[in-house]
Amino acid sequence: MGWMADETGLEKGPANYVPLTPLSTLRRAVSIYGPELAVVYGTHRKTYVEYAERITRLASALAARGVAPGDVVATLIPNLPAQAEAHFGVPACGAVLNTINTRLDVDTVAYILGHGGAKVVLADTQFIDLAEQAIAAQDGPAPILIEVPDEQAGFPATGRHLTYEDMLAGADPAFEWIMPDDEWESIALNYTSGTTGRPKGVVYHHRGAYLNAMGQILSWRMVLRPRYLTIVPLFHCNGWCHTWMMPMLGGRIICCRDITAPAIFSAIADEGATHFGGAPIVLNMLVNAPESERRAFDHTVEVFTAGAPPAPATLARIEPMGFNVTQVYGLTETYGPATECTWGPHWDDLQGDDRAAIKARQGVAMPIYDHITVMDDQMRQTPMDGETTGEIMMRGNGVMKGYYKNPEATAEAFKGGYFHSGDIAVQHPDSFVQITDRAKDVIISGGENISSVEVEGVLMGHPDVMLCAVVAKPDEKWGEVPCAFVELKPGAMGDAAALIAFARERLAGFKTPKQVVFGELPKTSTGKIQKFELRGKAKAL
Amino acid sequence: MGWMADETGLEKGPANYVPLTPLSTLRRAVSIYGPELAVVYGTHRKTYVEYAERITRLASALAARGVAPGDVVATLIPNLPAQAEAHFGVPACGAVLNTINTRLDVDTVAYILGHGGAKVVLADTQFIDLAEQAIAAQDGPAPILIEVPDEQAGFPATGRHLTYEDMLAGADPAFEWIMPDDEWESIALNYTSGTTGRPKGVVYHHRGAYLNAMGQILSWRMVLRPRYLTIVPLFHCNGWCHTWMMPMLGGRIICCRDITAPAIFSAIADEGATHFGGAPIVLNMLVNAPESERRAFDHTVEVFTAGAPPAPATLARIEPMGFNVTQVYGLTETYGPATECTWGPHWDDLQGDDRAAIKARQGVAMPIYDHITVMDDQMRQTPMDGETTGEIMMRGNGVMKGYYKNPEATAEAFKGGYFHSGDIAVQHPDSFVQITDRAKDVIISGGENISSVEVEGVLMGHPDVMLCAVVAKPDEKWGEVPCAFVELKPGAMGDAAALIAFARERLAGFKTPKQVVFGELPKTSTGKIQKFELRGKAKAL
Repeated sequence: MGWMADETGLEKGPANYVPLTPLSTLRRAVSIYGPELAVVYGTHRKTYVEYAERITRLASALAARGVAPGDVVATLIPNLPAQAEAHFGVPACGAVLNTINTRLDVDTVAYILGHGGAKVVLADTQFIDLAEQAIAAQDGPAPILIEVPDEQAGFPATGRHLTYEDMLAGADPAFEWIMPDDEWESIALNYTSGTTGRPKGVVYHHRGAYLNAMGQILSWRMVLRPRYLTIVPLFHCNGWCHTWMMPMLGGRIICCRDITAPAIFSAIADEGATHFGGAPIVLNMLVNAPESERRAFDHTVEVFTAGAPPAPATLARIEPMGFNVTQVYGLTETYGPATECTWGPHWDDLQGDDRAAIKARQGVAMPIYDHITVMDDQMRQTPMDGETTGEIMMRGNGVMKGYYKNPEATAEAFKGGYFHSGDIAVQHPDSFVQITDRAKDVIISGGENISSVEVEGVLMGHPDVMLCAVVAKPDEKWGEVPCAFVELKPGAMGDAAALIAFARERLAGFKTPKQVVFGELPKTSTGKIQKFELRGKAKAL
Repeated sequence: MGWMADETGLEKGPANYVPLTPLSTLRRAVSIYGPELAVVYGTHRKTYVEYAERITRLASALAARGVAPGDVVATLIPNLPAQAEAHFGVPACGAVLNTINTRLDVDTVAYILGHGGAKVVLADTQFIDLAEQAIAAQDGPAPILIEVPDEQAGFPATGRHLTYEDMLAGADPAFEWIMPDDEWESIALNYTSGTTGRPKGVVYHHRGAYLNAMGQILSWRMVLRPRYLTIVPLFHCNGWCHTWMMPMLGGRIICCRDITAPAIFSAIADEGATHFGGAPIVLNMLVNAPESERRAFDHTVEVFTAGAPPAPATLARIEPMGFNVTQVYGLTETYGPATECTWGPHWDDLQGDDRAAIKARQGVAMPIYDHITVMDDQMRQTPMDGETTGEIMMRGNGVMKGYYKNPEATAEAFKGGYFHSGDIAVQHPDSFVQITDRAKDVIISGGENISSVEVEGVLMGHPDVMLCAVVAKPDEKWGEVPCAFVELKPGAMGDAAALIAFARERLAGFKTPKQVVFGELPKTSTGKIQKFELRGKAKAL
């Protein structure tokens, strides 16, 4: 407790204490990087001055519609300029941004609107029906619906609602932003994907948004003026805080409506994208893209992948194409990435499987964390032997405020002073964490734990396999046995027996899948495979 | 005020709120970069694991000697490993680090020890007499004196005191660090250089040390594993927070006892130094170094210079040598740099004087600042026209807590919610700030303000001039006239008339120095010219 003998006059004041918030970083960027491009999307090209003016107009328009500090404003928008603007414009009127996953069903969106209590919803024309239906179905007072058309993508306004551009045109460009008085004030509300039960509303604060953004700059080795391609949806952990990060560096956001190989290659070749984040499925998309969809470029693109380890085969093919892949790991509860597989020069010479084995680790705590480690069920540190499993536990300024209107779930998640991730992992002797499974994805066969991730890693090495997921299938004798669901590469024929034999050569018998099912895998909007659905299918087989 | 309708359960807790402090970054670095070198100084080469162990021992040893949280521990040490260790070891026992300038006189050191109330002093053998005499002369209880010998530099222990290494050897390597409960707790006490009157004790807090370190990483375009050469004394604004910055990046500190051209070139060539900060005098030293003192290297070294703009002639010579020079500006009150002349790609083609003219600006606010600008004496924003002068004003998390035991001076410095820098500047249309003078350095001649910096810039362009300073000389007719003090390059002959003529060709008549005096200039330990001494000399001329 470093309080000196006499601290008279050393209290906080306006000159030396300013609440941490992404808003102040944008204000600074306008004065430094004003004439430089901040956001691009096809013909939409806005400088920092223009971006900030649009944000000011958005804040003014929301306030004029009765949005008060602490109120919720929801969005149903792909990774477009309006969605980026909402990340600043909503907090700039003191409100809390609730980006909703555009791929959810009406019932879930209605639940989120009712639970969050949104006063205004900004919805892309493609999702305007979803918004209308959800509003009709929700509990509580209906929010005002503002439509965000996207003419260049073939989504002109329906004419049924005030449009976003008309709203901005009528707003006050001199509106004074409402800055937080306390950095603990809420800035965003993100509902978990909710694979079971109702989604929980994860609340972020201004301090966390600021620190997560700043810390990731360090981890991601970003210097001034990066060009960030938005692949991770901005409705997923606020796009890992990247819209909040860009003003700190005078960076540019390259918006991307649909995630396709041609869209990504053209963002790199034409717009000079330097960084993006995405699930391994995006990496697969790139390595499997036909020559006609590819574009040449001569810089290295830094790619951050999460959701599953990048498969050795994918890594071996994508790195020579000009991408440097780093795995990160986190949850909605941690504003996106909390750990990163920080590369060391001592690994530079590793190739092939050895290189992939390192890159398969989820890694170490990002700079703003106080402590991320693996603990047993008594919250004791597990041995760092690369074998003993436990749960990943996190403590630090990258952890959410808690779950909205759910103090019980918050208390449960923070039991013992750590956030309980629910992910099962080992810790290597160098402290790097490696997930063996989600707690609920572990397969228990004859009393033995089977890591579904391990079995999937083996199957991904087979040349016919594009993507796969292994889940538990109930079994009378063993309790559970592994069952594999496989998506094949174009042109490959599914041969279950051959795949099982391939796995058996590389795995213990009890870990080898007993059954293989071919077909497209169900995925969330972020490319995560929805295992709970596959578990249902496996049960019915 | 972003407080949501129901914030039950969303309060701060140990899982999601950890006070910002450099201490946690070192703990994290040990687990990630443990076996990598953290500090090197000749044969002293310590990994992060070893560095942290020595720091733990230091904290334990101090606590064992009665140093309690909030107490002050002083140092009189050059840029050596023990000084770096004190930056963590002193706070790790809850205490406040008071690094004292080793070039101060006995009387001033005695004043600082008495005013700060140090319980322990760590003093390098070269300065042990100074420490002993100051302790003998100071008010209040005498601190315990620990001697830090430096045998490799020819300073073996005197035998009169317990040595630093013996103290560490007897300490507890399992001592538990005392972490701050509140990020506003004090971490360091730095006395201003005090060109007039007694020095003031500037207090830093853990939050500011953390944020300044993190923000400078962004400005300085540092990525993982930099190698930072310590030229700026660690007793000057804690070396601009660089010991606190390194663990965030797994960086290495290269210690340097004496600042000479051969020492700098060998740190670059042999130790791979990538970054350093230093006054323009250090740049002069490098460009004027004879061939025999230079070493070849093949990377670009990032150099941050402060205290005065780098002269065009210096820039033109140093950049082709492999150094990229960026000017930064700050004060003891701002933990070192607060602004930086952030380079833009639109200036890449500028050469010669045009390039130097941009690099002569002090620049824009570093990322953690809320607002840095120029205001008139009514605290109104001055026009950004590159001509109207005003005072640089600063608001943000990079500003000190205040002056120790001096609430009046603190209140005065923070009047109106901004820190008043005392520096006079113009602001260019792109918002970049450029200092025209320290308020007290402005020369007022016949009612016209003359910027001493402008006149110095012109004189520095003369091939004979190594260094110069222009001050006011009292004059019956004009009130004041400019008087130049010039340090010549080796071999150059002083020709006052020629220099005056050179200046007259480039300056208005009233700005041209009326007198030129040749000789070595008096400097502070950080290379700043002590103008108050020169003003005295000018008066006596």
